[in-house]
Amino acid sequence: MTAFETSIKDVARLVEATLDSMLPRRAGPLGRVIDAMRHGALDGGKRLRPFLVVAAADMFGAPRERSLRTGCAVEMIHCYSLIHDDLPAMDDSDLRRGRPSVHKAFDDATAILAGDALLTQAFEVLAGPETHPDGAVRCRLALELARASGRGGMVGGQMIDIYAEQKTFDLAGIEELQRLKTGAIIRFSAMAGGICGGANEAEIEALRLYAEDLGLSFQIVDDLLDAFGDAEALGKPVGQDADMDKATFVKLLGAEGARDKAKALVMRAKSHLDRFGDRAEALKGAADFVFARKN
Amino acid sequence: MTAFETSIKDVARLVEATLDSMLPRRAGPLGRVIDAMRHGALDGGKRLRPFLVVAAADMFGAPRERSLRTGCAVEMIHCYSLIHDDLPAMDDSDLRRGRPSVHKAFDDATAILAGDALLTQAFEVLAGPETHPDGAVRCRLALELARASGRGGMVGGQMIDIYAEQKTFDLAGIEELQRLKTGAIIRFSAMAGGICGGANEAEIEALRLYAEDLGLSFQIVDDLLDAFGDAEALGKPVGQDADMDKATFVKLLGAEGARDKAKALVMRAKSHLDRFGDRAEALKGAADFVFARKN
Repeated sequence: MTAFETSIKDVARLVEATLDSMLPRRAGPLGRVIDAMRHGALDGGKRLRPFLVVAAADMFGAPRERSLRTGCAVEMIHCYSLIHDDLPAMDDSDLRRGRPSVHKAFDDATAILAGDALLTQAFEVLAGPETHPDGAVRCRLALELARASGRGGMVGGQMIDIYAEQKTFDLAGIEELQRLKTGAIIRFSAMAGGICGGANEAEIEALRLYAEDLGLSFQIVDDLLDAFGDAEALGKPVGQDADMDKATFVKLLGAEGARDKAKALVMRAKSHLDRFGDRAEALKGAADFVFARKN
Repeated sequence: MTAFETSIKDVARLVEATLDSMLPRRAGPLGRVIDAMRHGALDGGKRLRPFLVVAAADMFGAPRERSLRTGCAVEMIHCYSLIHDDLPAMDDSDLRRGRPSVHKAFDDATAILAGDALLTQAFEVLAGPETHPDGAVRCRLALELARASGRGGMVGGQMIDIYAEQKTFDLAGIEELQRLKTGAIIRFSAMAGGICGGANEAEIEALRLYAEDLGLSFQIVDDLLDAFGDAEALGKPVGQDADMDKATFVKLLGAEGARDKAKALVMRAKSHLDRFGDRAEALKGAADFVFARKN
């Protein structure tokens, strides 16, 4: 395992343990919504977004308990969005990471409520004094996360994805969609690490530029994996975009063109971090990882 | 019109104007989610919760623009919960305040996203520097609102309401359910006004006790209106609780018993405000209003 792989796995373990402690089981109907939240939030994925928070915060010497809480808040938002997106009324996906999605394991009402509760708890976590001693810093994190995830960010992107006449999307249109739908939260993650660690505005801007390129690259690789990836490694069926004749980077640029674009974005993402020297190794590793990932 | 009626109508007008400015229309698919948010949040009801925020904050001389923003955040939470509760997967209500509910006027996916976006924007509003110059105060508001509306508050109450075997509810059970489902947000509203206005902890506690009794009284009157109210004034069908053989205060206490209990709670709610003297007139008026309301 490379140093980067060890590092992202370590953070994923810490995220898992922190989320587990933030969602304590209980009996009765209140326990049911918590069980559904746990189903949607635990044992999940690469934890790329919290890794970006923690790795960026590490550069500025932020205590890990602060950056982990911030990372877990982002992950709660990410997981709530997956729970709601999987609903029959939205993308109608029965599987998520090779397991039944929340509405399949429970039911639609419970999935709606579990998503609402995760979304709400993300802000509870950020507003809590353990996240940062300075209330102004906590508020900035909450404000930026709300902007990144609300109607002008992730939710808006999902709305465009569902309702725009997708076949008319050109490259600019699809980039704008992804900038909102997946990019805004990735952008927030890197910036939040800087905010958490007391970075100055120029440093936060460098993190934003890095994450902007990283997020777009992430989405292009997603499209490549849907077209050419391995269903088992992905934990979901492949070829869905083509079946739905969906506008993707692969469709618009071809496989090679998409791969070249993703590669160029990863290179440029890393170049934004040059000002941080060796301290940026983990974030640069994340960029390479996003490009090389198989799921 | 009584002084109180003038006062609550004035605040409702200000809330309407503030919400309208917080949800500016735009074109395209992003505009669609905003239209749905506006459908669910504007032109709505008595605005009791923001009134409680503003009236409590007024007692401590808080600037109206701060308490109005805080009240609008609460109202966004209230409205998101109505949008999601009305969904077919939840209560399946086609009508809300005499108009089509959001999923009927738009569709289920849009209603889910509009609810998510309102919930998110509530925290964006609270975290914004215009809400209070002190970040610690803004974070306390966000933290308390998240607790009141999440899995240990409103969402938890909704989960109990959907999944508990309702016919076994005794009076203690139904009080606990309502304390979470509707009570937590009402409690937050009065306390938030105090927090906004720099009240001390004893004053905030008095507001909490007031709102605790007010919230329960509110729910009992809701049950009475469902049993004996006027469908046209309510803007929704009556008799639904009885049709569903639902455990309500009316069923458990009888009409007279329920009315007596609501009245006693309103009296006790007002007594918690005695320490504030004449300054508490508006909040005392709100308690009388909750008891006497016809919708």
